[in-house]
Formats: sequence, structure tokens, C-alpha cells
Amino acid sequence: MMVVMKSGHSRDEFDGVMRRLEEVGLSGHPIEGAERTVIGVVGIVYPELSDELETMPGVDSTVRISSPYKLCSREFKPADTIVDVKGVKVGAGTVAVIAGPCAVESEEQVMTTARAVKERGASMLRGGAFKPRTSPYSFRGLEEEGLKLLAQARAETGLPVCTEVMSEATVDVVARYADVMQIGTRNAQNFFLLEEVAKVGKPVLLKRGMSASVMDWLLAAEYILAKGNRNVILCERGIRTFETATRNTMDINAIPLVKELSHLPVIADPSHGTGKWHLVEPVCLGMVAAGADGLILEVHPNPDHALSDGAQSLTFDSFERVMQRTATVAHAVGKRMEREAVGATA
Amino acid sequence: MMVVMKSGHSRDEFDGVMRRLEEVGLSGHPIEGAERTVIGVVGIVYPELSDELETMPGVDSTVRISSPYKLCSREFKPADTIVDVKGVKVGAGTVAVIAGPCAVESEEQVMTTARAVKERGASMLRGGAFKPRTSPYSFRGLEEEGLKLLAQARAETGLPVCTEVMSEATVDVVARYADVMQIGTRNAQNFFLLEEVAKVGKPVLLKRGMSASVMDWLLAAEYILAKGNRNVILCERGIRTFETATRNTMDINAIPLVKELSHLPVIADPSHGTGKWHLVEPVCLGMVAAGADGLILEVHPNPDHALSDGAQSLTFDSFERVMQRTATVAHAVGKRMEREAVGATA
Amino acid sequence: MMVVMKSGHSRDEFDGVMRRLEEVGLSGHPIEGAERTVIGVVGIVYPELSDELETMPGVDSTVRISSPYKLCSREFKPADTIVDVKGVKVGAGTVAVIAGPCAVESEEQVMTTARAVKERGASMLRGGAFKPRTSPYSFRGLEEEGLKLLAQARAETGLPVCTEVMSEATVDVVARYADVMQIGTRNAQNFFLLEEVAKVGKPVLLKRGMSASVMDWLLAAEYILAKGNRNVILCERGIRTFETATRNTMDINAIPLVKELSHLPVIADPSHGTGKWHLVEPVCLGMVAAGADGLILEVHPNPDHALSDGAQSLTFDSFERVMQRTATVAHAVGKRMEREAVGATA
Amino acid sequence: MMVVMKSGHSRDEFDGVMRRLEEVGLSGHPIEGAERTVIGVVGIVYPELSDELETMPGVDSTVRISSPYKLCSREFKPADTIVDVKGVKVGAGTVAVIAGPCAVESEEQVMTTARAVKERGASMLRGGAFKPRTSPYSFRGLEEEGLKLLAQARAETGLPVCTEVMSEATVDVVARYADVMQIGTRNAQNFFLLEEVAKVGKPVLLKRGMSASVMDWLLAAEYILAKGNRNVILCERGIRTFETATRNTMDINAIPLVKELSHLPVIADPSHGTGKWHLVEPVCLGMVAAGADGLILEVHPNPDHALSDGAQSLTFDSFERVMQRTATVAHAVGKRMEREAVGATA
Repeated sequence: MMVVMKSGHSRDEFDGVMRRLEEVGLSGHPIEGAERTVIGVVGIVYPELSDELETMPGVDSTVRISSPYKLCSREFKPADTIVDVKGVKVGAGTVAVIAGPCAVESEEQVMTTARAVKERGASMLRGGAFKPRTSPYSFRGLEEEGLKLLAQARAETGLPVCTEVMSEATVDVVARYADVMQIGTRNAQNFFLLEEVAKVGKPVLLKRGMSASVMDWLLAAEYILAKGNRNVILCERGIRTFETATRNTMDINAIPLVKELSHLPVIADPSHGTGKWHLVEPVCLGMVAAGADGLILEVHPNPDHALSDGAQSLTFDSFERVMQRTATVAHAVGKRMEREAVGATA
Repeated sequence: MMVVMKSGHSRDEFDGVMRRLEEVGLSGHPIEGAERTVIGVVGIVYPELSDELETMPGVDSTVRISSPYKLCSREFKPADTIVDVKGVKVGAGTVAVIAGPCAVESEEQVMTTARAVKERGASMLRGGAFKPRTSPYSFRGLEEEGLKLLAQARAETGLPVCTEVMSEATVDVVARYADVMQIGTRNAQNFFLLEEVAKVGKPVLLKRGMSASVMDWLLAAEYILAKGNRNVILCERGIRTFETATRNTMDINAIPLVKELSHLPVIADPSHGTGKWHLVEPVCLGMVAAGADGLILEVHPNPDHALSDGAQSLTFDSFERVMQRTATVAHAVGKRMEREAVGATA
Repeated sequence: MMVVMKSGHSRDEFDGVMRRLEEVGLSGHPIEGAERTVIGVVGIVYPELSDELETMPGVDSTVRISSPYKLCSREFKPADTIVDVKGVKVGAGTVAVIAGPCAVESEEQVMTTARAVKERGASMLRGGAFKPRTSPYSFRGLEEEGLKLLAQARAETGLPVCTEVMSEATVDVVARYADVMQIGTRNAQNFFLLEEVAKVGKPVLLKRGMSASVMDWLLAAEYILAKGNRNVILCERGIRTFETATRNTMDINAIPLVKELSHLPVIADPSHGTGKWHLVEPVCLGMVAAGADGLILEVHPNPDHALSDGAQSLTFDSFERVMQRTATVAHAVGKRMEREAVGATA
Repeated sequence: MMVVMKSGHSRDEFDGVMRRLEEVGLSGHPIEGAERTVIGVVGIVYPELSDELETMPGVDSTVRISSPYKLCSREFKPADTIVDVKGVKVGAGTVAVIAGPCAVESEEQVMTTARAVKERGASMLRGGAFKPRTSPYSFRGLEEEGLKLLAQARAETGLPVCTEVMSEATVDVVARYADVMQIGTRNAQNFFLLEEVAKVGKPVLLKRGMSASVMDWLLAAEYILAKGNRNVILCERGIRTFETATRNTMDINAIPLVKELSHLPVIADPSHGTGKWHLVEPVCLGMVAAGADGLILEVHPNPDHALSDGAQSLTFDSFERVMQRTATVAHAVGKRMEREAVGATA
């Protein structure tokens, strides 16, 4: 940490800062600049120190030098983390596709969709049994009934199941059925939930908060890793900006940036990232070309009758086309589709 | 709702939309414009209809006409809601000030601060016993021990206590001590928590999510009202924008806008809205002049040793000055301070 | 400036940075931290140095310590700048109001409005003769004809005229008629125009760019001051955020922040900042309470027939009410209205 | 256009709106909904009508149905526009790469770079002779001297030259040397400049404003098309959001969205879109996979001594790698590199 003194600070103010650093077991190294004095701080800095120092007289500001996350940083663990979900490997230099309906609506809908996405190369099945809805008057999911239908689809197709957990009260019930516990964007900084879910021990898919910086997102992952669960899959799902022509703004920069800063795998969610099914295909191709370790996609047998997010769901036909084109792009950047990989080793 | 057809849509596509509307019990009224055909929809529209229609062939987009929230709208209830917290009335044409430390740290800190803010005109005491922290390595609060200290301060000063509840698991324990249950910005769309807290029946202070539009925020309040709890105090605490010179961007426009759209009281949180104690005073004055029904402020006996948010906390002296200047501005816009009001009726 | 080295950098990389600093006449002072090495740079740093150093091997990042603007900073000139516009003093502890129609439309419209705003206490007349319009098909102003009408209104009322200059080609013609040369939000970083306008020597009203940080805005002002023109009035007019319920998000924090960082006067534009006439009054009161040195307001004799921005224009009656309430709030924060001030000395 | 009446509007207010529509030659078609009355407007609506109506008593809001741009819309011209720059075809199903230094610094720098990028497959040379700089104290370009160096590089390599024009005063001089006139992000809504540049008749590269919505951007293009110049190349260069870990947020969604809404070609600028050279390669691949018609890239012989934007410039080696990998991805999505295409037809 660096402490920047105000220009014109007094000797007493300077001494106060140096004394305070000593009190907390750190050492201060002053540098007299042309316009400002800066004090370099050596030692292990605790997070609140910055706040404390910034309120002291004569202090202009402080500057962090080290990153505030540790366990999820590349510096801590240089090698890529591969998350293994019942044999599906995410982050192993392949493109893993998680597909299925936004919300579980009926046995027929889930079974038909699970078969269709399996056949077209998906590695996992997604589907919401508990749905976060902006309005209390919207359809909110089939709850445990929905989880059972997902389990039934897994039993038939062999696809592991990824589903959202929205509240601490339902961690247990979701954990009974899910293979991947998904944390949604609105809970991306619900720290109690992050810790409860971490403790289950199953892989966690952590969506980026819609206004979370990359640093916030990695710190949220840190909550999970700090509880001893290293199986975190990060998911970029678009951020909120001034642009209203699309539901969110897909942050393509975040993909290579996260790969640089962290060892965790990162996938992309073009369904929510665009909010428009006709933009999903090109954005899938773009995110994979930029280095995403996978995709999560909404697929529905009949999007125009979907109870949730129909406007961004793919039909089986358009999903098939996305899978074919994605595979071609994946090969172009030196990767394979995760299911191809499985096939190849069979 | 209006359904806008694509230019060049076919007769079949048009008929499909009209048929679909009929299926769900609505009637469609086509208008042929110079460039586009639009279908006006008459009847009670359910939230998913928009999504369903937008995926139909020939449909360009849909446009909502009615607001999606009901119970918290002015149209539903034209008269201002006054939230009564043990005799403290929020929304009654006065300025109610909730003040105290960001985090409860010790008996001495809480008791000293409670007495100081009481003496200077605060109507309620705030203090965090459970703290949401971006990093898992930061100080996270004294938990129930902290709640007990708040209750002790209430016993001595008579000030009702406002404190944050961060998780469903702690709703019960917080409810045992709090007079106002606060929902923080990171939980502003944690819908399960909103409903659990609503059911307690005590007044709720609902902070705006850092990326929540005014509509999102009112819909979050709707979750609470829909559970039968009408005692919601809205709190503007700044939104996340590109500006980094301040911690958040205080949305002054939101104050009069919310007063127009809703009957609920709305207060302002300049401590978080600015993140810098030296900006707190002018922004307090501004938010009150713009119509805020109150303020929530961080006050600490010794901000430069605070375990949390010291940089935005006021000293007792600066709090005193803020209260005096705020009272003058409140009078200028035809209001009284809530504690003056109490005094005047005694 | 501080240079933060990557963890694990080599000795050669470190030496390279030290050598480079020496080459450009600066000295480097290394501090070995627990996790990182940081090099403090002493000497006058030129703006490009940061870019240069960040591309060197072994360098993680650089951190600026001094602010990049000079002439407009408080450190450079501690005393408030008072901009004198033909006797109207902006920044002298008063609230100066600039009012008039968005666009000049006709002699009758301008003359009627000028008289009405004069009578109600405005200090200057505004009106657009050249209008920036998002669409090429919108009304774009009466051009020189409009300037002549403004001059005629000045001749009758004595109010100085503030009007926008949109292009270098029209700097001369605008300068012939205007008392204050206004730079609009879309030209806030049109650096050639800033310099051309500066050279005219008349006071400049510089609106904040809709996506300009406070630092960008002060740097734009620096372009004007660097050409020897110190008469700059800054104008906060709202920034672009994700919120769509209002036209822009008025940044109230920016008012006290700019007063702290700079000696220049800063006024507020609630007409553009909200985009809705019914929000203008409360936001005027709020901005003045927060320390604004003035207001610029759109007033139209018949807003529902205005050729531009009718939705945010005040009628004469609502303007009168705004002036009365603003005066009361100004007094509450220890200020007078600029026209009162003039009156008092008469 | 649709006019949404307030709930509880009077008969007189309704009649007033109908009368006003008639006055301006339009016809109104009322629809009585369950909660609101809406009036459909038939006829050619002028842009100001919306503002006018929104201020009338009883009117809640208006909703545009048709897009406000015409000439650049797909509806107006369904076939892709191919911009021909001295034989280099942009938008013809290929990927055209424009490469060169951020700023022209010296003969050696320009000539070396021009040869290097030509050799590695670039289709055009870029280089700034007039530089927009946030600070007045930064290096601002060699001006006409720089243009002459670009012309010299063109003479030797045959690469057409793309360079920025920043002011009306320099349109003529830039037009004498440039093959593509570039409008930068800070001038993206400098409407006078757009029109002056349009009139030159040469192809225009129009960068998106850093806070311009896709609609704003297309309307800016409309200014150029409306002056009779159809040769516009759009360029996505990142938008300003809350994320500070990258210089801008590259909006990948905008690529397929613009291709859908408009017939104009759209290219991407990952150098500015990321601000970090190590993110440029993956983002290039992503933007091309998503459908970009080309790339514009900063390349410098010695980025760590660049006078401008060194941190985001590629070396010759990294540019070579980007070109090879981009070609592979282009093929995967069914495109060729523009220079390959030229080669193939030779």
C-alpha cells in the first residue's frame, strides 16, 4: 500500500501516519516527490487499514498494490483449475455447453429438451426450478417438483444437472438434486448464500453480478474458495450499462482478463448477455473465440410459449446450428468441444 | 400493451398474433400506421405475455403501457404512507435522521455514539451487527453480541434501532432486536429474503440496489407489500456509474421521481452515496431540499480508527453541524425535523 | 508516480525501469514490499510516461499521484474564481440564474420570455440559435437570425446572453452576439473548439460531457485556461447511466467535489439533468443546497408547442415558483440570489 | 407513434390531443385498455411531436414505433453496403485490417510500420497526425507533417491511408492526404464536423461515441448519409461503463445488432476497446467470430517508447500472430481476409 500525503501537510500529520503504521506492525518508507510525499507501506496490510488512514489529517488517499483476492488468483495457483462434474471437465482446454430451458415447466418440456440438447452435443442440462423474478407477480418455478424432473432427465440422458439456488433455506433441497449449484446474478454478492453453497462441496457456477466489476466478481469467488471449495466455474452474463437495445452488455474483455488474473474456468451466457435469441449465435462464436471455457444457453421446444425468457431462448434447430458453428470456431482456436473430447476417449 | 409488427409481416403472422391474444382471453385492436402495424391489447396482461409475443414470427416488439408494480404505486394509493417506528413517523412531512456507526464495534463505541446522536437530534440509531463485505477477509460484525449492544443503547436513549439483516438464517435473531429491518444494496433483489423479512411485520428499510433502476427498486418493494407489510421506507444510496471520484453516484432525481410514482417515504444515504465524509454535508442538504423524508448517516466517535467505512463517517462535531444546517434547509422547504416535531407536540 | 513491478520480475527488468527513468531525467526510489516491489518516481512526470512504463517487461502498472490538471486546481489558485459577465458575477457566493428557451424560435417567443424571466429574477438570458440534434431531421435553429433576436432581447432587458457555439466555423458569428459562449455536452471534448472559443476571450460556460468523469471535465476546462482565458463557468447537466426513467442522472456529488478540487464556479442544469419539467423544481433546490453557484433553466411561453425539449421546459408560472423557492433555499445555506445581490447594492 | 394517456384523464384532455394531431395533419385512433387509454397516431410523424405531446395535460408518455434513422437502416436498403477504398473492399464478406501506429512520430517509425503491417496482411494503414488528448499537455501530433509521412508510406506500400480529422478547420488538409476520413469517439456527435466530412465525398470511418447507444451511433451515421455520402464504415471501439479493469467495455453485442439494423459495414477496434495489448488478440478473434467486417489495430515498432497509447499497441511479432489467428477464425465463420481475397483474384 502507498499513502499519498496532501500537499502542504504538516510534520505532525506525517509523524501521525508513521506512528499509526508502527502501531499496527507495519513499516513506512517515505518518498519526497516533486509535488507530493508518498509513504510506501511494507508488511501484511489488513483490508480496513486503507479506510483508517484515509481519515487521518494530512492524508490525501491510499493506493492498494496487491490484489485483495488470494486463493482465486493466478499468482497463488498458476495452473488452470479443471472443474470435474461427474466426468464433464470444465476448463480443460475444451468448450463445455450447458443447455436447457430457462424454467422447468413440465415433464414433457424437460425430457424433450434434455434429449434434444444431449443429441446435439451439450455436456450438461440446465433448468430453473426456483426462478428469481423482478416482479412478485411473475411465474416463480415448480420448486422441488422441478428439481425431480431435472433428476429424471439426468437419469435418462446421463447429463449432469446445473440449477440455481436462490436462498439459504433451499440449499439443502437443491443440493439433493443438482450436480452444479448455480448462483445467479442477483445473489452474486449475497455472501451468506455463497458460503452456505460452498459448504455443500459440489461445484458452483458463479454468475457475475450485473454491476460487479471483475474484482468484485473474483472476491465473490474468494468467499467460496475460502470455505475450502475450489470447484468454482465463473460465468460472464453481461453487465448493466446505458445501452438499452440489448438486455445487458456482454463483456467480452472479461473473458481473457479473468483467464489472466485467475486459474478458475470462465464460461459465457449469451442468452442473458444479449436477451435476444437472434444475437445468441454470433455472440457464442465470439465468446468462444475470445477464450471462454464453455457456454450456458437457454433452449426451449417452443420459445414463443415459454413461461420465462422466451425472447432469448433458442429452438432445437437454432441450437443445433449454434453447436455446429461453435465447434468450428473452437477448432480454429485450438480447442475441442467437451463432448467431442469425451467421445474421442470412449 | 402494444404489439408492434415488423414492416413486411405476412397476413398469417398477423392472424397468429390475433389468435394467440384470443387464446389467452385478451382482445387485439389493430392500427395500420404509415410504416407499421400496431396491435393494441385490451385486458389484464400477465407478465410473461410480452416475452411470448416477441418470439412470434412477424412481431417486432411489444410496449408495456401500465406499470408492473401496483401496491406501491400512487395510482393504487394516492395518499402518502407514513411509517410509524415506535412513535417516530417517517414520511409525515418531516426529516427523520437515522444515525450511528457503520459497524457495532464495542459497548463504549455504541453507547457513546447513541448518546451523541440523540443529543444532536437523531430520531433513530443505526449500526451494523452483520456486515456485508466485498472481501471474505474483512471484519464482518459482532453478530448477536452487536444486536444486544444496540438494544442496550435503545434502552438508555429511547432511540429505535435500525439494523441490517443479511440472510434468511438470521431474520429471527435480527427481528428480536431491531425496530427497523434494513435490506442492504447487495440484497436488494434477494427476493426470498425480501419475503422472509416482510413476514416479520416490522418496518423495512429497503436500500436501492447499486444497479437497480427506479422500476426495479419499486418492484422489490412490491415483494414486501405483496406479503401484507405496508411499512416500507425506501432508501436512495447511490448507483454505480462510470464516475470513480466518488464511491457511488447519488441519484437526486430519484427522490422526486419516487415521490411521484409511489406513496412510500424515501430517505437518502449520503455516507454511502458519496463515500467521502467531506461531501456528506452538502449532499445531505441537497437531498433534503429535493424532498427526501429523511437521512441515514454514519457517525463514529473516532472515524480514523473505525473498523469499517471510516472514510465516510462523520465525527460528532461534523454531525452536529450537519443537523443544524439540515434543519435550516428543511424549514426552507416547509418541513420540520422529525425530532423537533416530536418535541413540539410534547 | 509509482511504478508497481510484477511479482516475480527479474533483476534485469527492474534495472530496465530504473535506467529508463534516468534517461528521461527522473529518479526512482524502490520499496520492497511483502508481496511487491514499487518504485517511487521523483521529478516532473510527462503524461506519456505512464503508457511507456506500463509496456516494459516486469511492470504491472503505474499509479499517478499528482492531478493532471494544474491551472484549474485549488492547489494552483486557492481563492474562488468569480466570473464577471457584464456585471453579473458568477461564483461570488450567490445563485445566478440563466433562463430562456431551449431554441430561439421567433421574435415574439424570445422577447416575451426575456421579459418574463427578467421580471422573475433571472440574471442572464439563454437561448439556442445553433442546436445540436441527435437526428439530422430535427429542427436545428435559426442560426444568425436567432442570435440577432437574442441581442435584441438583451438590448431591451439588459440581460447578458448565453448561447451555444457548436462549431469552429461559427465561433466568430456567435462571438459577435454572445456574452457567454456555451460549449455543449456533445462538444465537451472537442478540443479544437475549446481552444478556438477560449481565444475569443469572453466567458465560457462548459457543460460536462455526458460520459465525462469529473477529471475529464476539469481537463477540458484546462484546455481553456491554458489558452489564457480564466473565465470558465462549469455546468453539471447530468451523466449517462443505466437509469432510463429520467433523461440523465444528475450528479449532485459533483457539485461539492468540483468546489473542492477547483476554484472555478459550477452551476447546474436541471432541465437536461432530469428531462422532465415536473422534476426540475426539486432538483433546482437540491443542487443549490449542495452548493451550486447558479442554475441554467429552460423556460418557454408555451412548452407544449416548443420546437425542442418542450418536455423539460418550465412555464412562466412554474419558473416563478422555482425562483421563489430557490431564493428561500439559497438563504438557508447562507447565499443570496445574484439579482437580489445586484439590487441590494443599487 | 402511440400516445399513452394518464389514468383518470379528462374528456377535454383527450379531445385536446385528438385536436392537436388533426392540426398537424395526423389521425388519432383511440384504444380503451383495461387501465389506460392509448391513441395510435397514423401519418408521418416529425421528431418534435413527441416532446410537444408529452407536455399536454392528460398525456402520460409517447412511444415511438418507427426507427428515427432511415437511410442507414436495413429496411431502406436490404443489401449490404460495400465501401470501396481504392480497391480495398470493406463489408464484402471479408475481414479488412487497418493497422499502424496510434500517432505518427517520425519518418522511420511510419515507414517501418507500414512495411511491417503490409507484409503481415493489413489492407490499410492507420496513423494519427492530429491527436485528441484528454489533457492539453500531452503530445498532440505532427499535423500536416504527419499527413505527408502517411502519404509517403502509401506511395511505397500501396496501402490506403485512414487518419483522423478532429476539426472543421483541418478537413481540407486531411482530405488532401487521407483515403478514409476517421471521426473519433469524442467527435462522434460533433454534427457540424460530420457534415463537413461527409461533403468531402471520401469514405468515412465513424467511431462509436463512448457513451453513444447503438441508436445514437446510427443517427450520427445518418448525418453523413443525409449529405449524400453513402461510404460509411462504422467502428465499435468500446463504451464507458463502471468497469475500470479495462479502458473501455467492448460491446460485442453491437456487432450482430448493427448488422441486423443497418446495411453499413462495421469493424472493431480492440486496441481502444481493451486498452491493454495482451487482451487485443483474444478480443480480435471474438469480434471477427461475432461478425465484424474488419479490425483497426495499433501497431508500433517499439511500444514501450510510443508517444501515445503504448500500453495498447502490438509489436510486429504480436501483430503477426494476431493476423494468423484471425485468418483461421475468419475461415471458421466462412470469411476470408480482405488481402487474401485480393490475392485470390489476382
